[in-house]
Amino acid sequence: MKVLLIGGCGFIGSHVVDSLLAAGMSVRVFDRVQERFRPPVPGVEYVLGDLTDIAQTYEAMSGVDALVHLASATVPATANHDPVGDISGNLITMVRLLKAMRETGLRRMVYLSSGGTVYGPPETPLVNEDHPLRPINSYGIVKVAIENYLHMEHVLHGLQHVVLRASNPYGPRHGHTGVQGIIGTHMWRMARSEPVEIWGDGSVVRDYLHVRDLAELCVSALRSDVSGCYNAGSGTGVSVTEIVDRIRQVVKRSGYEAPPVIHKPGRGFDVPRVVLDIGRARRDLGWTPRIGLEEGLTETWEWILSRKD
Amino acid sequence: MKVLLIGGCGFIGSHVVDSLLAAGMSVRVFDRVQERFRPPVPGVEYVLGDLTDIAQTYEAMSGVDALVHLASATVPATANHDPVGDISGNLITMVRLLKAMRETGLRRMVYLSSGGTVYGPPETPLVNEDHPLRPINSYGIVKVAIENYLHMEHVLHGLQHVVLRASNPYGPRHGHTGVQGIIGTHMWRMARSEPVEIWGDGSVVRDYLHVRDLAELCVSALRSDVSGCYNAGSGTGVSVTEIVDRIRQVVKRSGYEAPPVIHKPGRGFDVPRVVLDIGRARRDLGWTPRIGLEEGLTETWEWILSRKD
Repeated sequence: MKVLLIGGCGFIGSHVVDSLLAAGMSVRVFDRVQERFRPPVPGVEYVLGDLTDIAQTYEAMSGVDALVHLASATVPATANHDPVGDISGNLITMVRLLKAMRETGLRRMVYLSSGGTVYGPPETPLVNEDHPLRPINSYGIVKVAIENYLHMEHVLHGLQHVVLRASNPYGPRHGHTGVQGIIGTHMWRMARSEPVEIWGDGSVVRDYLHVRDLAELCVSALRSDVSGCYNAGSGTGVSVTEIVDRIRQVVKRSGYEAPPVIHKPGRGFDVPRVVLDIGRARRDLGWTPRIGLEEGLTETWEWILSRKD
Repeated sequence: MKVLLIGGCGFIGSHVVDSLLAAGMSVRVFDRVQERFRPPVPGVEYVLGDLTDIAQTYEAMSGVDALVHLASATVPATANHDPVGDISGNLITMVRLLKAMRETGLRRMVYLSSGGTVYGPPETPLVNEDHPLRPINSYGIVKVAIENYLHMEHVLHGLQHVVLRASNPYGPRHGHTGVQGIIGTHMWRMARSEPVEIWGDGSVVRDYLHVRDLAELCVSALRSDVSGCYNAGSGTGVSVTEIVDRIRQVVKRSGYEAPPVIHKPGRGFDVPRVVLDIGRARRDLGWTPRIGLEEGLTETWEWILSRKD
């Protein structure tokens, strides 16, 4: 199978590249820039371009059997500042992409959605895929709209699509811009002896998934014939306070000093607790997360130490 | 209360004008063109302009206490032809409108959504507001996204909003362009002795609401302090075959001949049956539809006869 991987040079994309290659698949990456933390991977075909350029997009799709779409023009924390940009950059781009796929006969897509935002404030301790979709930030609203266009394309034009509603992926090659991913952001700050910031009282509970487990799920989704939405998390909730404690332990164990924690006011659009029920992905896709938090945090910290200079 | 009525010169808008005036409210209409079937209504302030013009929109909002938004750049039957236009014309326009409302302190809105499209294929004979939102056409997808932005504005910035998920409004002043509203469209064709077209086998079941009942619901919503989504239908299902039969009876009774019916292939995005549970609007808004189908059809036909030359 030849796969077009949109956003394949990003944090998650770089791991999906590895998993696709390991699964014996042929990989074409479409992204705006090359990977940040390693040179181009041998055997991978790279096409540098922009999804908003229709001609480039058509060209990139030629000869592929499936598409994995990981790109996003926004991140949850900042999409509210510019909802029009969020809609234009993500939703309209997706609608155009779906048209291009229909016209070129490409009928298989894995799309990365957001388990942390599409449901809004959960009504249950574990959130399954049938939970109402009541997003309260622009990022989640646009993800829901994209999921709905994918579903419409499935119903009307036979697109086989797997939507992965990912929780909080973490792991090696996470950047340090500080706009997404508490684990990467905090570890990068600690590696530079900068104080760590917590938004709110630390009680916010999230579900952290190692990025290689997410990448493996992409491969499982490509090999399957199902269509629909799948939660992609660890199934376990960890509070911000606890994750920071565990990061500090990992840091201290490596002989580094853990900097102080600074508490900042909570953000109105932060949902208090999201832990994903991953039963459907286990059942339908034969997938299970394999990398425990301890192992994952240690690996991530070691990678950051190896890159910090 | 002074109300800005966006789309107040359209079919539904013209009736909302009447109901607002009858309720003693002050009305400013914002629309692109004047009403089609009657001269400007005395006592109403008309502002002709376009919602995409931000300066005009800000100006139109000055001094009003509430906004009723009925305008749509698309109709269900054609939005799929141009989803990008649907998104730009409706969703982005709404996001900009919400920003303008926030900046001017206008915190009350009634918005016309679509009970026929936001739910997708219903899982229950009567659809209530908690039914999953799984739209399968662009019109419904964009309506859901707009509802979500309204909900977000409520949660983050205290907008008091009532979303009316209307079924199929019909009644006097319905146009005859043939893209929406089977009752108006069929009656106009019959009045001109043109054959009537049915998409599919006629088994599609819909919920028809007299437009004056819908207009009364807008007034009830403005007078209420609730926020949320409300179905706005009759609560009764009628098949296309039955509605066409009943229209033909009304036509024949008036001494006219009812033209033949032509069956055309069904449309993939037509949901087979949507009948709205209107218990929530009855309970929270003290509203109930008052005009029966027989009375409404007769009134509509008489109005069309009075206008057909």
